[in-house]
Amino acid sequence: MRTRSILAAVLLALFMSPSCGSGKPPVFLKKPFSASTNIPGKEYPKINPDLSVTCRVEAPDAISVELDLCNKVYPMVQIDEGVWEVTSDPQVPGFHYYFINVDGVRVSDPSSRLFYGCGLMASGIEIPEAGVDFYIEKEVPHGEVRMQRYWSGLTQTWRICYVYIPAAYDKNPETRYPVLYLQHGGGEDETGWANQGKLDNIMDNLIASGEAVPMIIVMDRGSAILANSVDSERSRNIFDFSAFEKVVVEELVPMIDAGYRTLADRNNRAIAGLSLGGFQSWSIGLSHQDLFSYIGGFSGAGMDPSPEKYPVSLNEQMNLLYISIGTDEPEQMYAGVKAFHDMLENKGVRHLYYESEGTGHEWLTWRRSLRQFAALLFR
Amino acid sequence: MRTRSILAAVLLALFMSPSCGSGKPPVFLKKPFSASTNIPGKEYPKINPDLSVTCRVEAPDAISVELDLCNKVYPMVQIDEGVWEVTSDPQVPGFHYYFINVDGVRVSDPSSRLFYGCGLMASGIEIPEAGVDFYIEKEVPHGEVRMQRYWSGLTQTWRICYVYIPAAYDKNPETRYPVLYLQHGGGEDETGWANQGKLDNIMDNLIASGEAVPMIIVMDRGSAILANSVDSERSRNIFDFSAFEKVVVEELVPMIDAGYRTLADRNNRAIAGLSLGGFQSWSIGLSHQDLFSYIGGFSGAGMDPSPEKYPVSLNEQMNLLYISIGTDEPEQMYAGVKAFHDMLENKGVRHLYYESEGTGHEWLTWRRSLRQFAALLFR
Repeated sequence: MRTRSILAAVLLALFMSPSCGSGKPPVFLKKPFSASTNIPGKEYPKINPDLSVTCRVEAPDAISVELDLCNKVYPMVQIDEGVWEVTSDPQVPGFHYYFINVDGVRVSDPSSRLFYGCGLMASGIEIPEAGVDFYIEKEVPHGEVRMQRYWSGLTQTWRICYVYIPAAYDKNPETRYPVLYLQHGGGEDETGWANQGKLDNIMDNLIASGEAVPMIIVMDRGSAILANSVDSERSRNIFDFSAFEKVVVEELVPMIDAGYRTLADRNNRAIAGLSLGGFQSWSIGLSHQDLFSYIGGFSGAGMDPSPEKYPVSLNEQMNLLYISIGTDEPEQMYAGVKAFHDMLENKGVRHLYYESEGTGHEWLTWRRSLRQFAALLFR
Repeated sequence: MRTRSILAAVLLALFMSPSCGSGKPPVFLKKPFSASTNIPGKEYPKINPDLSVTCRVEAPDAISVELDLCNKVYPMVQIDEGVWEVTSDPQVPGFHYYFINVDGVRVSDPSSRLFYGCGLMASGIEIPEAGVDFYIEKEVPHGEVRMQRYWSGLTQTWRICYVYIPAAYDKNPETRYPVLYLQHGGGEDETGWANQGKLDNIMDNLIASGEAVPMIIVMDRGSAILANSVDSERSRNIFDFSAFEKVVVEELVPMIDAGYRTLADRNNRAIAGLSLGGFQSWSIGLSHQDLFSYIGGFSGAGMDPSPEKYPVSLNEQMNLLYISIGTDEPEQMYAGVKAFHDMLENKGVRHLYYESEGTGHEWLTWRRSLRQFAALLFR
């Protein structure tokens, strides 16, 4: 359990400020341009040809303004009456959360679209990647992301999950589809994969090119508090997700199978997630092999790495076990996941292990993982 | 055109800080509770029994912190090491945007869910309304809100519109449905009606009780820049929405009729909107009577009030003309819309005029208007 507690500590730290990679991408931009994640019409933040980021904030009466981006705080300077600016170091491509510190208060950048992460609505910036377009919107048939409400008797609340529906769904009213249950990370929610993850672009492109089979993807909020739970249980220990597990097994899966044209058997059901969601997916997936035969953990897999929990018999029972990690993730996170992979390797438990080159505990690692994982499902 | 320019000025001001009503609601809360619009787990802002709002912000190094809520700025005081607090005046029920000023910088409240309004991601607070539940989630069949991407050749960009699909849609693959095109206000976008407007709750409840017929509702972003437009046109004069009008007529409506099971004729097509969206809807609707036979303007109707634009023949041509306004809206806005209503009245142009009691230029006015307008459609 030591590994678990170390991982838990690292995870908790990462919820507050995710790590970014340090891989130096090729320069390919001709001139600075406004980030695609800006509020429409906002010129700043701008991304420069070397992929550094220039931020501007209007703060006439502030004494100190800072940019907090990817594990580094940059003091901003007044370049003009009340206008503060700073240019960051070159950034790794992908999506990064960031904040502005105004006289010590960590706030979001009024010029940025905001994304639910780090336990609040955070500013985010999309850094383009040279020659990479698997998560870019293209002229292919587009699926939809649907906001699906459902009543949870267990929690006595209405819950909302996001459901990705492949483009062909409405055109083929007789066809039934396999389902991937896909979880967000700690400090994020059911909107993460659709917003920061660009899940719909990734899947639309994979399905259009035939690299992935058309599938339904369900993204629910990875937390729940049972209505009958006592106060002590309500303390929301995020590493005790037994209540969420109950919701998934007893309410979410049955609701999806009843409301959508699914192939409702374990050979057509997968569960995966990122960070905390990866730990949840491995735990829930292995505890309910009657429901799931594909399991994926992106930057998070076996919360409890005790070897006896992973018998070689999994080789017969499961269609796929998947683990991934960014090479630039915090050392303990990388080491913990790598050690888990080695343990499975030594025991002869078949699984696919992927390292995302030059990325940290961040969305590019998870976009790449989803692309690879989704292509392997339901074959 | 004088009325128009006055309205334009008022509208522009309202985009930055919407007005709130002053109607005193009945007291019905037993004790203070955390707002439903808070980030999960956040205790503040709290709503008190008298519907005043208590906000708390952590700002150890700030010199001045203020709450900017409903046309009033409240200086916050340090109640504890670096913790600032203030309690506002009692608020009108409904949804209100608000901001926190940290040493003069207007930012969003880190404890609040954020909503795209006032031209940025703004904090928002939902104040409950005694005995009113038409926009509250109930145990009725729920429709879905779908994010629908479509390629716009006119703008050479991918656009996303939100589409509300009634609960029965997937269960009745043969049934076709009428369509309401519903626009947001200035400084807002296609997410407004689904997030701030609680459109899906309003429609789910109306349809479940039989007060409204099942319909599809399309919410697109009310702006567009033609790819071939010259720079001068790109200045984004929000009152020139000819480009958006082209997108609606030539691309949006055809895309929806091709992709969804619609009743594709003017008798089954309506267009309505709030504030700027109301002006757009009246203008686009009347210019394309071949497409629309129902028109609604909530806190915004005839941008050009010249009587000759509204012939009595509209009584034969249109199924419904609808106008609404909050009694507590800024005087010029109220006067402008009221004058337009009087002009139609005097000319004998049939229309329904509704005043929302005690509400300003804000979402409760528009939720009430949608409830009334939707119930009158496609009968």
